[in-house]
Amino acid sequence: MLLHNDRLFPSEPSALKVARSLYAHIRNLPIVSPHGHTQAAWFATNEPFPDPATLFVQPDHYVFRMLYSQGVSMDDLEIGQPVVKDPRRVWRIFASHYYLFRGTPTRIWLDYAFQELFGMKERLSEKTADLYFDTIAEKLKAPEFLPRALYEKFNIELLSTTESPLDPLKAHQAIRDSGWKARIVPAFRPDAVVDPSFTGFAGLVAQLGAQNGEDTSTWKGYLNALMKARARFKTLGCTSTDHGHPTAQTADLSQTDAAALFGKVIASKADAAEQELFRAQMLTEMARMSVEDGLVMQIHPGSVRNHNKFVFERYGRDMGADIPGPTGFVHALRPLLDRFGNDKNLTIILFMLDESTISRELAPLAGHYPCLRLGPPWWFHDSPEGMMRFREQATETAGFYNTVGFNDDTRAFLSIPARHDVARRVDCAFLGRLVAEHRLDEDEAFELAHQLTYDLVKKAYRL
Amino acid sequence: MLLHNDRLFPSEPSALKVARSLYAHIRNLPIVSPHGHTQAAWFATNEPFPDPATLFVQPDHYVFRMLYSQGVSMDDLEIGQPVVKDPRRVWRIFASHYYLFRGTPTRIWLDYAFQELFGMKERLSEKTADLYFDTIAEKLKAPEFLPRALYEKFNIELLSTTESPLDPLKAHQAIRDSGWKARIVPAFRPDAVVDPSFTGFAGLVAQLGAQNGEDTSTWKGYLNALMKARARFKTLGCTSTDHGHPTAQTADLSQTDAAALFGKVIASKADAAEQELFRAQMLTEMARMSVEDGLVMQIHPGSVRNHNKFVFERYGRDMGADIPGPTGFVHALRPLLDRFGNDKNLTIILFMLDESTISRELAPLAGHYPCLRLGPPWWFHDSPEGMMRFREQATETAGFYNTVGFNDDTRAFLSIPARHDVARRVDCAFLGRLVAEHRLDEDEAFELAHQLTYDLVKKAYRL
Amino acid sequence: MLLHNDRLFPSEPSALKVARSLYAHIRNLPIVSPHGHTQAAWFATNEPFPDPATLFVQPDHYVFRMLYSQGVSMDDLEIGQPVVKDPRRVWRIFASHYYLFRGTPTRIWLDYAFQELFGMKERLSEKTADLYFDTIAEKLKAPEFLPRALYEKFNIELLSTTESPLDPLKAHQAIRDSGWKARIVPAFRPDAVVDPSFTGFAGLVAQLGAQNGEDTSTWKGYLNALMKARARFKTLGCTSTDHGHPTAQTADLSQTDAAALFGKVIASKADAAEQELFRAQMLTEMARMSVEDGLVMQIHPGSVRNHNKFVFERYGRDMGADIPGPTGFVHALRPLLDRFGNDKNLTIILFMLDESTISRELAPLAGHYPCLRLGPPWWFHDSPEGMMRFREQATETAGFYNTVGFNDDTRAFLSIPARHDVARRVDCAFLGRLVAEHRLDEDEAFELAHQLTYDLVKKAYRL
Repeated sequence: MLLHNDRLFPSEPSALKVARSLYAHIRNLPIVSPHGHTQAAWFATNEPFPDPATLFVQPDHYVFRMLYSQGVSMDDLEIGQPVVKDPRRVWRIFASHYYLFRGTPTRIWLDYAFQELFGMKERLSEKTADLYFDTIAEKLKAPEFLPRALYEKFNIELLSTTESPLDPLKAHQAIRDSGWKARIVPAFRPDAVVDPSFTGFAGLVAQLGAQNGEDTSTWKGYLNALMKARARFKTLGCTSTDHGHPTAQTADLSQTDAAALFGKVIASKADAAEQELFRAQMLTEMARMSVEDGLVMQIHPGSVRNHNKFVFERYGRDMGADIPGPTGFVHALRPLLDRFGNDKNLTIILFMLDESTISRELAPLAGHYPCLRLGPPWWFHDSPEGMMRFREQATETAGFYNTVGFNDDTRAFLSIPARHDVARRVDCAFLGRLVAEHRLDEDEAFELAHQLTYDLVKKAYRL
Repeated sequence: MLLHNDRLFPSEPSALKVARSLYAHIRNLPIVSPHGHTQAAWFATNEPFPDPATLFVQPDHYVFRMLYSQGVSMDDLEIGQPVVKDPRRVWRIFASHYYLFRGTPTRIWLDYAFQELFGMKERLSEKTADLYFDTIAEKLKAPEFLPRALYEKFNIELLSTTESPLDPLKAHQAIRDSGWKARIVPAFRPDAVVDPSFTGFAGLVAQLGAQNGEDTSTWKGYLNALMKARARFKTLGCTSTDHGHPTAQTADLSQTDAAALFGKVIASKADAAEQELFRAQMLTEMARMSVEDGLVMQIHPGSVRNHNKFVFERYGRDMGADIPGPTGFVHALRPLLDRFGNDKNLTIILFMLDESTISRELAPLAGHYPCLRLGPPWWFHDSPEGMMRFREQATETAGFYNTVGFNDDTRAFLSIPARHDVARRVDCAFLGRLVAEHRLDEDEAFELAHQLTYDLVKKAYRL
Repeated sequence: MLLHNDRLFPSEPSALKVARSLYAHIRNLPIVSPHGHTQAAWFATNEPFPDPATLFVQPDHYVFRMLYSQGVSMDDLEIGQPVVKDPRRVWRIFASHYYLFRGTPTRIWLDYAFQELFGMKERLSEKTADLYFDTIAEKLKAPEFLPRALYEKFNIELLSTTESPLDPLKAHQAIRDSGWKARIVPAFRPDAVVDPSFTGFAGLVAQLGAQNGEDTSTWKGYLNALMKARARFKTLGCTSTDHGHPTAQTADLSQTDAAALFGKVIASKADAAEQELFRAQMLTEMARMSVEDGLVMQIHPGSVRNHNKFVFERYGRDMGADIPGPTGFVHALRPLLDRFGNDKNLTIILFMLDESTISRELAPLAGHYPCLRLGPPWWFHDSPEGMMRFREQATETAGFYNTVGFNDDTRAFLSIPARHDVARRVDCAFLGRLVAEHRLDEDEAFELAHQLTYDLVKKAYRL
């Protein structure tokens, strides 16, 4: 066995016993995945996944960033290529470096898929590379490994993808039209048309106007077009927006000033500070629209994107070279909160990449403002230690009920059950310790385990 | 039982055994409470506390901020009202949301009072709301629940309140005059007359002058008046000052520049930066006075007060909407330390709301400067995890002896024994782990447990 | 016994069992010490160490900063004096304050030396002060306590000192010439000739020119002189450089702009910002040289040096008054990384004093850039809790293989075995917990224990 049944639980017997019981209680609950980056097209077309390298290595920046950090060439891994030409060669490179992932969540996620989906029993290594490749490649051809079959096998109740307002959502529509009874919905991610630093921003905004029958050369038409795009997403089940700004800065300009700033931005005359101010203003505009249409806001700030110039120029975005920076919330969110912070119809879910903010800013904010909730630990912190630190640093001030369950936030469809399993285990480990230290009664821990796994996410995301 | 005898101790048996022994050794030591926000008037008049809602809900921002964060109306809780009109209704709202406090220190403090003082055995909930209300309301009428009786029952050796220099301290005087043998002393908190951003600052400074027979329109008269007010506090047992500035910034201007700045400030012509500079200068002036008169300084920086505009405008200050921000000490304290940092007659106790400063700045500062000590984890960090992280992050560099025992820092008189009990248990848990991991000898742990509970606070606060 | 055989291991039996086995496997591996501040002259002359106070108290700022923080006079400890006149008196002061070190790594290091080298069995205290003094003083005279004998007894395979480019390295040459088969090498630390804020900077740069036959009044001659000095260090076994800048800021100016800046700096006309820019540029120049000559770069940023004005003026540098400040890497390193971040011939080892950067910036950077590695927790964090937090916060994103084993980084030669022992124990404790929680297989833990102790350091430092 690659995986022990008690993995991630405390080794101390009294806490272990509670953690085991709690986990038994919730391990089979359906997966609710309200935020992620899988592709609706997989489920619309239901084509088989091509091969192990294309499935596990090429799209996963957690995987290839680690290999790259240890001197493996991204070209050798065929990163950024439209098709992997020599998947077995890529797989062998990956396998012979698999030891690099010791102690990382990637290792846990992959071992889970290898064991649970593909029945592997011996650890991946140079020696077992071909056995793995052949076994996985073979199984991927089988009907039970098609995307829809896996979706059902994974016991997914809801899966949200993340899409641009410019996306026609044809795949989502096709899934609906197919009559397949799965709930796959889009989240509205407008970064490309609200962040002036995006390449081709003005053209994208014009496209937004054209698609929605609005004149987006005016501030009012621009806002109308966004509102219409949101409405279109809602017809396909969307309940949330998502905002991946460099910072959490918000602003609350007068509409006159906002319109003037928009004019500058759309004319590509805005400097860096004005671009930041525009993004800030747009978060507040998005909150205003959310108050109207009920979409839950997600804010994912603090990533310094494309940090490696060479990698960006050669391979493009999302190549494992995004590095978090210090992030502030307490001053940054104030303009938005001054305006809408006490509105009962607003929910904003905050994510962080800077752990120093958990106990200092995020828990106190979420433990006071009725609109604020804390998203689960994100990205580099979506890991056993990261999740445990999050619970330890957030719970005493924000409680459990200002958190929103788990997000897998993944491009790697096959990792979804593994990621949810890790989150469930870590929550049970945390609750188990609280019970073993007599800080929580056991009946409460059972109730909480269920809520952290299932109820809070449905409530927070209005599902 | 609501509370287990081993709560907050490690569940691992060898560490648990040591923690239990240590706790048995110190659990009954008297409470020394050198910093807090109880009201001397309670003990001067010795009137019964009115009802459960007025006692436990209305004044406790830890309680109602959590309820508010989950959509409970502050109006329904009668927050900010002079008298609670329908205490049973408020209590029922509170009881039916009591589950929100799972995993928080508030839950531990309240359960302690419910069990130890009021003999409750079943958990507070919607179902038990009336039982709790009736039981507590009944007991509050009994003589053994009068403030003075509780003070004695709590085994308090000293209790410090926190008062403005403008306070006539009549209640403190009345306690002394009554002949009751309790040691209730004021701490000198001059924020309202040294922080120009306080509403009505100039008028308050004028009042300070009038009270002390000094012309506070001049810098010299202003300093004299503060010195006289400090002397007045000392006659009633005061041994410490307290400073709740937005930052830890200090300054060391020439007296000419300071006088000019004071002129600007008092004429309400100072901008935000000048107000900050004035506060910074005043910390250094306060240190100078402390060198003279021996009052121990406490600095509580880093809270962004009244963050929620709506709540502030409707309900006022201290309504659960204060949010910490990033706080720096290493540069901020330097002007003061350059001047007085090596003075043997000065003690400055530093508090923090930004945990990233513990290992980075605070422990190295306190582990070097003879005048600096670290206050216990404050406010949002006055919690089992917060205290444990503080010990883990401070001890290796600052040692135990540059810390000062526990502060309850509370407005909630009935929570005092619970808060000290939590601190004692967490210290015993930490020491128990050190012994179980053979990082400290058991005899040393016993000595330390006593010192952390009793001796260090008396030494640091010069009691 | 002062020390328990299981010290620093988890007390939970299943994790303890693994930690013990891992430790048994690696405890006797040779010590590789690639960065530190011992003196080559000790081994060149092989004179006995003078007395206990001169050995343990006077040079160790960890020791006397703690004593000073608790009111012990630095004069009474004869700090900063060329010779300790009354070593027994100093020793007695130290012994009577030894309790201050409870819970600190200093205590562990000292107890290790006391027990393992000097055979002490009772704890150091006022009572045992003279017994310790006499025993240690006596043993120091014995041949087996001479520096070379201790070096061999400690099983040191390599020891690096840290030297200025101006140092003639006579002691290193003398060791080589003596025929003694030890590997003692210098690291190249150019701060004094690349940081314009150093006292006498221009004169030191001129001296650098004179020593290397270059005209260091020109930018080109200056760079040539540095290159030659590096080459000279390499002939004596040097494999690394070290840079202790106030920040991690780098720059990548054109050579024209860099030459102009150098002109300003050497003429003492650069302001603080220009001095910072020059240091930043020099880090990039050093990286360029490292790409050429293969020396591994170490960057130790973030210390605010000489924070205590009085102590600096009276006693000088390195007197326990250096305090860390907030440190940024993500933006600061970008200019250097844009230029050389993907170069296969470059290794940069990053150290930190600001733990909030571990999970936020350092692990993501090292988990991507092929040139970056994470140094072990430095200075105030070279401690059991600090090391454990480092592993917990770095491993999930950077893995184990982007770390470089342990640095003792000490001036205290006798503490070297103790420091490595602590690091080995903490690594075994961390690995033991991962195994006990089924997050790592036991065979992998054995391999990792060996690599963390021995292999990674040799690889990273190119030894």
